[in-house]
Amino acid sequence: MNDMTMDPGIMMSIVEDLSRYSGGFAPLDRQPGCAQPLPSRQIMAAIAEELRSVLFPGYFGRMESTGENLRFHIGAALDGVRRDIQEQVRRALCFACTDSDAVRGCAGRSMEITRRFLSSLPMIQKMLVEDVTAAYEGDPACLSPDEAILAYPGVYALAVHRIAHALFELEVPLLPRMLSEIAHGATGIDIHPGARIGRRFFTDHGTGVVIGATCIIGDRVRVYQGVTLGAKTFQLDDDGHPVKGVPRHPIIEDDVVIYSGATILGRITVGRGSIIGGNVWLTRSVPAGSRITQGSARHEIFQSGSGI
Amino acid sequence: MNDMTMDPGIMMSIVEDLSRYSGGFAPLDRQPGCAQPLPSRQIMAAIAEELRSVLFPGYFGRMESTGENLRFHIGAALDGVRRDIQEQVRRALCFACTDSDAVRGCAGRSMEITRRFLSSLPMIQKMLVEDVTAAYEGDPACLSPDEAILAYPGVYALAVHRIAHALFELEVPLLPRMLSEIAHGATGIDIHPGARIGRRFFTDHGTGVVIGATCIIGDRVRVYQGVTLGAKTFQLDDDGHPVKGVPRHPIIEDDVVIYSGATILGRITVGRGSIIGGNVWLTRSVPAGSRITQGSARHEIFQSGSGI
Amino acid sequence: MNDMTMDPGIMMSIVEDLSRYSGGFAPLDRQPGCAQPLPSRQIMAAIAEELRSVLFPGYFGRMESTGENLRFHIGAALDGVRRDIQEQVRRALCFACTDSDAVRGCAGRSMEITRRFLSSLPMIQKMLVEDVTAAYEGDPACLSPDEAILAYPGVYALAVHRIAHALFELEVPLLPRMLSEIAHGATGIDIHPGARIGRRFFTDHGTGVVIGATCIIGDRVRVYQGVTLGAKTFQLDDDGHPVKGVPRHPIIEDDVVIYSGATILGRITVGRGSIIGGNVWLTRSVPAGSRITQGSARHEIFQSGSGI
Amino acid sequence: MNDMTMDPGIMMSIVEDLSRYSGGFAPLDRQPGCAQPLPSRQIMAAIAEELRSVLFPGYFGRMESTGENLRFHIGAALDGVRRDIQEQVRRALCFACTDSDAVRGCAGRSMEITRRFLSSLPMIQKMLVEDVTAAYEGDPACLSPDEAILAYPGVYALAVHRIAHALFELEVPLLPRMLSEIAHGATGIDIHPGARIGRRFFTDHGTGVVIGATCIIGDRVRVYQGVTLGAKTFQLDDDGHPVKGVPRHPIIEDDVVIYSGATILGRITVGRGSIIGGNVWLTRSVPAGSRITQGSARHEIFQSGSGI
Amino acid sequence: MNDMTMDPGIMMSIVEDLSRYSGGFAPLDRQPGCAQPLPSRQIMAAIAEELRSVLFPGYFGRMESTGENLRFHIGAALDGVRRDIQEQVRRALCFACTDSDAVRGCAGRSMEITRRFLSSLPMIQKMLVEDVTAAYEGDPACLSPDEAILAYPGVYALAVHRIAHALFELEVPLLPRMLSEIAHGATGIDIHPGARIGRRFFTDHGTGVVIGATCIIGDRVRVYQGVTLGAKTFQLDDDGHPVKGVPRHPIIEDDVVIYSGATILGRITVGRGSIIGGNVWLTRSVPAGSRITQGSARHEIFQSGSGI
Amino acid sequence: MNDMTMDPGIMMSIVEDLSRYSGGFAPLDRQPGCAQPLPSRQIMAAIAEELRSVLFPGYFGRMESTGENLRFHIGAALDGVRRDIQEQVRRALCFACTDSDAVRGCAGRSMEITRRFLSSLPMIQKMLVEDVTAAYEGDPACLSPDEAILAYPGVYALAVHRIAHALFELEVPLLPRMLSEIAHGATGIDIHPGARIGRRFFTDHGTGVVIGATCIIGDRVRVYQGVTLGAKTFQLDDDGHPVKGVPRHPIIEDDVVIYSGATILGRITVGRGSIIGGNVWLTRSVPAGSRITQGSARHEIFQSGSGI
Repeated sequence: MNDMTMDPGIMMSIVEDLSRYSGGFAPLDRQPGCAQPLPSRQIMAAIAEELRSVLFPGYFGRMESTGENLRFHIGAALDGVRRDIQEQVRRALCFACTDSDAVRGCAGRSMEITRRFLSSLPMIQKMLVEDVTAAYEGDPACLSPDEAILAYPGVYALAVHRIAHALFELEVPLLPRMLSEIAHGATGIDIHPGARIGRRFFTDHGTGVVIGATCIIGDRVRVYQGVTLGAKTFQLDDDGHPVKGVPRHPIIEDDVVIYSGATILGRITVGRGSIIGGNVWLTRSVPAGSRITQGSARHEIFQSGSGI
Repeated sequence: MNDMTMDPGIMMSIVEDLSRYSGGFAPLDRQPGCAQPLPSRQIMAAIAEELRSVLFPGYFGRMESTGENLRFHIGAALDGVRRDIQEQVRRALCFACTDSDAVRGCAGRSMEITRRFLSSLPMIQKMLVEDVTAAYEGDPACLSPDEAILAYPGVYALAVHRIAHALFELEVPLLPRMLSEIAHGATGIDIHPGARIGRRFFTDHGTGVVIGATCIIGDRVRVYQGVTLGAKTFQLDDDGHPVKGVPRHPIIEDDVVIYSGATILGRITVGRGSIIGGNVWLTRSVPAGSRITQGSARHEIFQSGSGI
Repeated sequence: MNDMTMDPGIMMSIVEDLSRYSGGFAPLDRQPGCAQPLPSRQIMAAIAEELRSVLFPGYFGRMESTGENLRFHIGAALDGVRRDIQEQVRRALCFACTDSDAVRGCAGRSMEITRRFLSSLPMIQKMLVEDVTAAYEGDPACLSPDEAILAYPGVYALAVHRIAHALFELEVPLLPRMLSEIAHGATGIDIHPGARIGRRFFTDHGTGVVIGATCIIGDRVRVYQGVTLGAKTFQLDDDGHPVKGVPRHPIIEDDVVIYSGATILGRITVGRGSIIGGNVWLTRSVPAGSRITQGSARHEIFQSGSGI
Repeated sequence: MNDMTMDPGIMMSIVEDLSRYSGGFAPLDRQPGCAQPLPSRQIMAAIAEELRSVLFPGYFGRMESTGENLRFHIGAALDGVRRDIQEQVRRALCFACTDSDAVRGCAGRSMEITRRFLSSLPMIQKMLVEDVTAAYEGDPACLSPDEAILAYPGVYALAVHRIAHALFELEVPLLPRMLSEIAHGATGIDIHPGARIGRRFFTDHGTGVVIGATCIIGDRVRVYQGVTLGAKTFQLDDDGHPVKGVPRHPIIEDDVVIYSGATILGRITVGRGSIIGGNVWLTRSVPAGSRITQGSARHEIFQSGSGI
Repeated sequence: MNDMTMDPGIMMSIVEDLSRYSGGFAPLDRQPGCAQPLPSRQIMAAIAEELRSVLFPGYFGRMESTGENLRFHIGAALDGVRRDIQEQVRRALCFACTDSDAVRGCAGRSMEITRRFLSSLPMIQKMLVEDVTAAYEGDPACLSPDEAILAYPGVYALAVHRIAHALFELEVPLLPRMLSEIAHGATGIDIHPGARIGRRFFTDHGTGVVIGATCIIGDRVRVYQGVTLGAKTFQLDDDGHPVKGVPRHPIIEDDVVIYSGATILGRITVGRGSIIGGNVWLTRSVPAGSRITQGSARHEIFQSGSGI
Repeated sequence: MNDMTMDPGIMMSIVEDLSRYSGGFAPLDRQPGCAQPLPSRQIMAAIAEELRSVLFPGYFGRMESTGENLRFHIGAALDGVRRDIQEQVRRALCFACTDSDAVRGCAGRSMEITRRFLSSLPMIQKMLVEDVTAAYEGDPACLSPDEAILAYPGVYALAVHRIAHALFELEVPLLPRMLSEIAHGATGIDIHPGARIGRRFFTDHGTGVVIGATCIIGDRVRVYQGVTLGAKTFQLDDDGHPVKGVPRHPIIEDDVVIYSGATILGRITVGRGSIIGGNVWLTRSVPAGSRITQGSARHEIFQSGSGI
């Protein structure tokens, strides 16, 4: 029942305030050159969805097809993605662009970036084929590679990461982080697009996994739920603000396994083939072949403990 | 292929059972006064989305606009929200309303509540401007305030929380929790709408954060993923049921930092400026300026440990 | 601006590569018998949504109805689900079907399975009525059973689990895991459809909860956020691949409470009425009535600790 | 490309003008009593669609069902229509309502009207069963009654008319004409909701058919495309405005056939069993059993006629 | 406001009546063999839309593409249409199928029909290229062939007709008429799918055009709005029902022009190159080269005529 | 059932043919300068819908608002239309643009055109206020101006025409005709955007009305269903093609009434205040105050006429 309405004067004043205070964000005022709208989260989400159906053809979207016909669907989806992503890249470039003559430059660069991004998709797909195998082989509960594709959050998060990382490498602003947050929201796996992740990576369950922006991860690494690969501290500049861009996250070498809830902080190295136990807290480098577990103290049983 | 269909008799009997057993929930039977449908989760989600585009104008939704025109979009969106939320508030009031003459009372109260809620939006926006700054300044990986708005789950969860808390303060049943769960589902950050959170709050990554209903959090607090601010125990009444409404969650004073995985339980106080280390388990108050870390026992390395 | 387009030759070659590399997945080639499309994640998500509105009638979907009319909505929704799920079951059976004459067998079996699945819904609803009561009684912040239905992720995850488990028991491939991942994505609660969970189960907050495929959980169990009921190790076969289907997850007996962040691994038994404290790491069986907490070492305070 | 935007001042002034000039319509200002929004054309269209699926169960909408299950779909659709139409009737009553105390009266009357309207649906369906038979028997190109339901515009227009006429009889403002225009837009058949049409009515092709507000049509009448049953003149009042509500359209008795393009004007009577030929222009009554054709003059052939 | 609801007993009784009376249609009871749902009007409309974008690539739908990429979109759209139309053909065959063993026959025939239908599309497109040229050349107001494709109802109606006619030739029940009615509803042009229409056909404006089931139309024919090519009378069988399938509509030879409002009835022949003037009523054959106009009587002016 | 699929080779060959034959249209190849996609019919339809809600605020769309708030909705809708129409105008200009340096020219001109178009909307609205009054006063069945807005196809067709005509005057290619065909499809009223129509125009019922491109219509003219204001003949150029742009449709002076089915052809003038009777065929000018009816011959009754 909309019987009565608000006093228009109050409404006007609220709108007025909201318009004024939003000056605190002022996203558009800062773009004297391009004056474009910001990239759209909704469209980036659609692009992520479409790319998933392109990279795993036959598994998602409207591609209920076989063999040759699949090619049409891949081509049509890719052609659509091409247009959408080029527009979003252009907006993102304009967002970061300060010179008032730069508009056409942004348009041209967005085309070039799109071209290079699309050209990297086959290689990304090749890596995902291996990642899927790693998931299938790494989890006894996984009954087929198809199940890994259709139902493993780690495979989805990794697919989005490899896409976001490619855009990150092409120095596109904003979009890589928007993509990684889309995957984070859907899976609870938070991989910064700057992270470099090798082949056959597998993360099972995945909720709460955090992989920082300057992480370097080798091949055949396995990571379980709740693992943090984070920064220990970060430098502050003279104004007390954190310095951006400094390497501050771990290097994980090939064939490392990190069990659930482990926390690995700072620019340390976990040597090849190491196993980091569940809930371990690690802030210094360990050599190849290490086996790290928590102290046994935690295993004590206090039968009579009442409070929790 | 729908060649054959189920025996209608079986179908009838399943429907019959489902109708009968659903009496166990009986949501509508308990409303002798108003007999309204329950609030709609789908519409609450749409309201959350619309309010986000109002509070961060130019960042979300269809508002690809600049300067003055933004005002139209804010006004139009707000006018739509006004109608929708008034209807949902009315339903929520009717849900909790027991007296059979109370219908018109619910309609009138929902209007008054809506008016007050909308009037609080500019103040909420003002706080969010500061929260965004806190996110930008608190994370070296964050390259602009815009990135914080577009891609930080903590900013979104906090925006929804500040909205939900405003409705909670207006004593609206059901809706605040529905909103907080919408944010929880999208981000993994679970803030009870009853929690009181000060200015410039920042939570990074956020997955697994739990902030209880009676928490009180000061200004400039930072919280990382997997942190629990929970209850230690709760009182049971004579029937063995938990007593509702008792203060049972921590008080976190200004300028506290709580690192990932820390668990802080009970009505204790973490003094101003304290730093609580990762994975710390804390169940008693600590004074201002405390630095709490886990014991070093966990840092031991057991090179020969075989099974994990 | 779509002013210019990509060189068609490059585009062709990308599509060609994507088509070829996708042979690494080859989902359809392996189905010489049925050659059906794979089950659709989107439709499974719609089925989960529709079933939720059937099991909690009046709380979700378009069912803003009372009393008798509810019956029509339940029947109509169920009849729609019947068709959709039968088709998805058929696709899932065909996916796993190897014999080229099996097509009609898959169609027939999908009908029989659908019949049995639908017939199990009233029993599932009956259990959910109890689960909702457990949530209401288990959390002092929960003000009504309706709030538990509308806003508790644990209730939703459990509803989907009970559905997925029913399909798992009927030996349907793929679909149960697709369903459990839909709930995992929405709630952060990851329950393998194979897990057997007793009555009045309650998980609060839930983010990061992992419950493995061969878990057996008794009645009246409570589990908080971040709890893992996982495998400690798993057997490898002669090729170094994990052996599938071996019991490897815990047995949790009746009336156990497991607090947040606890990790319980391996085919061990937690005896009836035990309480497992937060962050506890447990890899061996404990008798009935145990109270397990972490060692006190972690409670030490290091006031002067600088770096985190 | 949204590179540049309009001068906000111009935009403001356009909006200002549009707001001011729209005062010429002022739909809402005239409702001092109820101040409701107007009925929604979009929702009326949805209601027409839903009612079609209820009246022809199994032919439209999501009702791909057989036998008993159909009942659920009919009930669910009808329950949805009930809510929607009650709200639209209330708006329509409020629109026409002038007394400031009348709000609750409108709510109550809308409920009573909805009740009576729904109760008339079975009778409407009964008439439509006969109308479908008339279409099947009246057109040699129609191969089954099902084809008449699925593909004959006359059947659809008549179904909507019978619905609109029921609301017209219940003295609901606005809605009947909105419904008839929905059918007119879809079929080119324009039947005023006030027209009274007997059983087994059939109009083939139908484009351009116009049937006026005070027409009375008997049973078993057939009408072809382009037929007008209109007013010849209408009375003007002292201000020169047409007097509303005066009988001014033809009475067509039982068993009359009117061929394409015929125009019948004024409050005349076409006697039972008459046949009115194509393109005939008729402005006076004809007795039962008449056969009216155009004069033969028009049949002359002018072989050498050059201009068209 | 849904404050009060209808007495459930009345509701039940209405649903009961609607279910019972709908037995008058009984669409499904008559299909002892296949028991399939009826074809879906909504899906047929989507198929028409998709086929339009395939036949006029680049003009409709999401195909904002050039050159080579267009191929992907055509292929993807066609592959989607293939699946949808095969399912609808199967339903239509089952609808008309009476033998209880015929299910598999319908499935097989639907595949064969779909194959043949798709194979006819290039030829249909070839004809449409010519039809578009005819429209462009036939109307001085048409400024480009593209305008004819984008904005001429006659081109759309003809495209749908050529599709519907192909299905008619393949003896598919129901679907051809459903398609022709979709075009009729959108354009006011009613062409029965059985009509045979030659090359370079053009109908301008088109509203009210009716072309009967057994019409045969030559090449380069032009037809204006309101033209009827209908049956004069039709035979009745011994029961007084019209005999189906008898040739009863005109034959229009090559290069005929028929101006607006002309009515041509019966199995007569309009000879090659004839011109039929506006509003002419013609019920006998005319030789090649005829010029037919109405008698001049109608041109008289009655200055003093008062009533209309 | 998608059990089997088409031979990919056949599919490939169909796609190949469709791609090749579509070269007959070649919409994009002809744009060497801009190479833009064509304007989108779907978006033009959305623009028409949005503009209707702007011109009749409170009657359509989501604007269920009163007084002041309406302003926000008008502004927001207009700002959205601004972006959409500017993009479509740019595409339309590029479509007609032949010089390869003209891209930026098209972008700039589309902005200027959009500005001028939007500035003309208040004047259009002012005219529509009068048109609505004319409808209300012209039809005794019309009970309020609101009914005319909500349910009269003539009002809708005229609103779209006034919009399309404004774009026509601004020399935008394609879009005006696309708009007029959208209104034609919805109402059966076909007004060429070039036609100049005075104030207080009213067309009742409207199905089959055709108003040609070079018509000039004065103030207070009334036109009924099935009226054609067309061309009699048109000039052919040396190639036998019609010459475009020549005045060839009637001039209708102020206060003329034209009854249903009348056909008026050629560049003739119908003098002020004339009344043209139903079905009249008129191909020469008539002076002011004429009363034209058909000869009486047609009123003869042939009682014994058997055939129709």
